[in-house]
Amino acid sequence: MSQLLKVQNFTVSSDGFGAGENQTLERPFGHADPRELMAWAGATASWPNRTDDGGTRGLDDYLTRDFSRNIGAEIMGRNKFGPQRGPWTDHEWQGWWGAEPPFHTPVFVMTHYYRPSFALGETTFHFVDGEPASVLARAKEAAQGKDVRLGGGATTVREFLEADLVDTLHVAVAPVKLGGGVRLWESPDELRDRFHLDVVPSPSGVTHHLFWRKER
Amino acid sequence: MSQLLKVQNFTVSSDGFGAGENQTLERPFGHADPRELMAWAGATASWPNRTDDGGTRGLDDYLTRDFSRNIGAEIMGRNKFGPQRGPWTDHEWQGWWGAEPPFHTPVFVMTHYYRPSFALGETTFHFVDGEPASVLARAKEAAQGKDVRLGGGATTVREFLEADLVDTLHVAVAPVKLGGGVRLWESPDELRDRFHLDVVPSPSGVTHHLFWRKER
Repeated sequence: MSQLLKVQNFTVSSDGFGAGENQTLERPFGHADPRELMAWAGATASWPNRTDDGGTRGLDDYLTRDFSRNIGAEIMGRNKFGPQRGPWTDHEWQGWWGAEPPFHTPVFVMTHYYRPSFALGETTFHFVDGEPASVLARAKEAAQGKDVRLGGGATTVREFLEADLVDTLHVAVAPVKLGGGVRLWESPDELRDRFHLDVVPSPSGVTHHLFWRKER
Repeated sequence: MSQLLKVQNFTVSSDGFGAGENQTLERPFGHADPRELMAWAGATASWPNRTDDGGTRGLDDYLTRDFSRNIGAEIMGRNKFGPQRGPWTDHEWQGWWGAEPPFHTPVFVMTHYYRPSFALGETTFHFVDGEPASVLARAKEAAQGKDVRLGGGATTVREFLEADLVDTLHVAVAPVKLGGGVRLWESPDELRDRFHLDVVPSPSGVTHHLFWRKER
């Protein structure tokens, strides 16, 4: 079985935005409220940040439960790591993900600016420049035969889609309108030429879009 | 997190039967055609019996992909193992599951008649008498902290439901009418008093029923 590049639990607004405008240190999703966008995921038993025994175990839980299954590395855009633009000036600040990030694998952060790798808990962050294809090659090597997660944000997902490197995507469309921000798509139909698509409304109010690549 | 007892990928006809009438060695599902009942699962990339790289990766695949996740043991009724009734007379015949059964864990086969344990590939079959609660206790111990799968058939699932021992159930209702056989239910609504239920129609034609127990 070959190694896949997978987008998982990526949530967008009903008008197609993965995050709002004006990202800052305090507001990683800009004007969007991540608790609202991600409410469907936070309610499930398998949400990585959950600490108690509760949570739903229906459809949404099958999606969050799959988050780390057979994943050996993640690729993320720079702004999923932090709000900085330009050269890295503060190496003390180690990203939005806390002392025990939920990835537990090597993570490749795409940036044009040099920064040394460091480990936090079971996660190691590497800062890499280059085209999507070369970053993916490095991530696959690090994943040691397992799949690679493409973590987002929306701009990074679009870059890899344009390079035709994505094998499967799970995008949850939340019943929230943002009006502006970082756009993933105008409509999921844009991907139908290259992907099969199951559209699955969840009782929680989100609609899961499950894409997998057509044979080439 | 406590150990769960889970029913997974259990498929019934639209009129509620898990298998047909007149089970024989040649026809484990009696007059029902298992290829018809299980077509939704066989089409997925993660179906355990698949040997090639193909298959769908949409909704149905999330369900089959979850089959062995965190499962440490299975409990099955005698007639999921073989068609025999009464005392075991032929120890040479080792069940319907071939030289490499898809379980890869200890499997507890419920029977009133003694038969010695044996291993096939990574699966070990144990033949156990007793009430559901005591069989579950043995299976949980064997599962070493992982969850336990309740594999079926329908009669066995009903027994454990009556004893109120089941934590989650995934039942796929196939668009096939059997008219008779081994019944799971008259209607999924029978379980609504004790379970939350997500009803999720799949583009493949089956309707997934995802139950999880209400807090007690």
